[in-house]
Amino acid sequence: MAPLTVPFKQMDVFTSVPFKGNPVAVINCLDINDDQITKEQMQSIATWTNLSETTFLFKTKLKECDYKLRIFTPVKELDFAGHPTIGSANAFLQFTKPTTKPKSLKQECGVGIIDLKIDENDRISLKANVNGYEVMDSQELKNEYSSALGDLKIINDPITVNTGIKWLVIFTQDSKTCFDCDPNYTKIAQLSKKYDNIGVILAGKKSNDNQQYEMRAFAPVINVNEDPVCGSGSISCITAIQHYEKFVHTTNISITQGGRVNRDGRLFTIIKVSEDKSITYHTGGDALCLVDGKINITI
Amino acid sequence: MAPLTVPFKQMDVFTSVPFKGNPVAVINCLDINDDQITKEQMQSIATWTNLSETTFLFKTKLKECDYKLRIFTPVKELDFAGHPTIGSANAFLQFTKPTTKPKSLKQECGVGIIDLKIDENDRISLKANVNGYEVMDSQELKNEYSSALGDLKIINDPITVNTGIKWLVIFTQDSKTCFDCDPNYTKIAQLSKKYDNIGVILAGKKSNDNQQYEMRAFAPVINVNEDPVCGSGSISCITAIQHYEKFVHTTNISITQGGRVNRDGRLFTIIKVSEDKSITYHTGGDALCLVDGKINITI
Repeated sequence: MAPLTVPFKQMDVFTSVPFKGNPVAVINCLDINDDQITKEQMQSIATWTNLSETTFLFKTKLKECDYKLRIFTPVKELDFAGHPTIGSANAFLQFTKPTTKPKSLKQECGVGIIDLKIDENDRISLKANVNGYEVMDSQELKNEYSSALGDLKIINDPITVNTGIKWLVIFTQDSKTCFDCDPNYTKIAQLSKKYDNIGVILAGKKSNDNQQYEMRAFAPVINVNEDPVCGSGSISCITAIQHYEKFVHTTNISITQGGRVNRDGRLFTIIKVSEDKSITYHTGGDALCLVDGKINITI
Repeated sequence: MAPLTVPFKQMDVFTSVPFKGNPVAVINCLDINDDQITKEQMQSIATWTNLSETTFLFKTKLKECDYKLRIFTPVKELDFAGHPTIGSANAFLQFTKPTTKPKSLKQECGVGIIDLKIDENDRISLKANVNGYEVMDSQELKNEYSSALGDLKIINDPITVNTGIKWLVIFTQDSKTCFDCDPNYTKIAQLSKKYDNIGVILAGKKSNDNQQYEMRAFAPVINVNEDPVCGSGSISCITAIQHYEKFVHTTNISITQGGRVNRDGRLFTIIKVSEDKSITYHTGGDALCLVDGKINITI
């Protein structure tokens, strides 16, 4: 096999402070053919980087799209993930350096086409595909999760939100209780298998303000005990917030995440209420390129 | 603060197959001053890379040494670690490109000076500082670890070996039992706190051959559930092997590790018995540079 080396960037997503966001490794396969790298190789690379996600940018065959993205955790391929999408879209613009800065991008990935907007501050946000949600009103489930989260007080019925992956969103009484939570990862992983979700999104309001939340994301079943700043989690979170708050006008929700694991993440999310009262969910933030170079796929 | 960018490599250690060894991120601070990067920044970077270790190469003030190495896990600084030393020494040679290939290097680090040999195949090995060991003959400890390792059969008294960090070495009946072990990471972490070690080195002989072992390394107390290929673990392992086997001549021990987590690691270790019967422990292997570029420390 001939040696294969392609461009590589490790991005820091949902922060403006280096090393305080959520990293994603982005591997630029735009100038090679799909058959030059196998799924098995991509999985091995993603296992090796040990990041929550590693992505691969490919040329797309869909005319309306700008690129195709494949997303891998250390153990499997995902159809969609939030912070890797934001990091990869930023990396795509840095790799391809378009002469005219676009105001939007379309990403082909496992769940279909993802619409991205680029604002005047170069901040990229995505419009999420929310494929419904389910309110989990079982007292047994609440008791099991309360125990797994260290006898945490759960103040609502948890909600399973499906954005291609399924997070179980749990609200606790306030941001401090959320921040202080010490989960039992073995129990959370067992419950993820039992209830068919990727993990828990835990959230608490700041000072009873319904537009400011602290959030955490636990996904031990995919070997990610705590995801420091989580895009798909933020979408799941605001979907559950809208279930309870029933905002009738477009509402910005600011979410901080990662403080407990020495990060400084901020997610700028929007619950967008259209004139016809249909609702869409958006999340975005800053992204920094911190490692820039090449990766040897084969040597 | 002025932006600071330095050279970066991510090495794959103890393998000859890309992405099948143990990664270490190596940050080249040889051309900056010690006060241009703080311990806090180094810790933030090591948390962010999410690798078991991230290292920083500095100029050394010790005339007999070639460089100074600082080693960080995602949660703390270590005085010494095996695979990061082998990866960093390889990266040092690639960064500095000496015109005459040296046959040895001396590394300054937390535990003191580490002697490294470079053989004719460019394979680097280190002479370990083994600061004694302790045979743990408590039945309670054996029962607790047997339970934490999934009711594993433990065939010897475990041995705590101190190489700057303390691994508890446990032998099971054969390589297959070692490979199949499913530990409870929460319990292992609790036991690490109770017995003051970094984690468990589990080993089993292949086909009753006392020079061929399968090995695994579990260190959940420092957020590394399973270290895929572990240099300091291999030193601890052969120290414990020598306690039981009492080899009277220099003996090579070949250790495979990582198969259970889809790696293909190989450690070439030596129990060296000198003419005066004093014993030293050595470990080495191959190392590949897979990511090569720059890292933005501040932007």
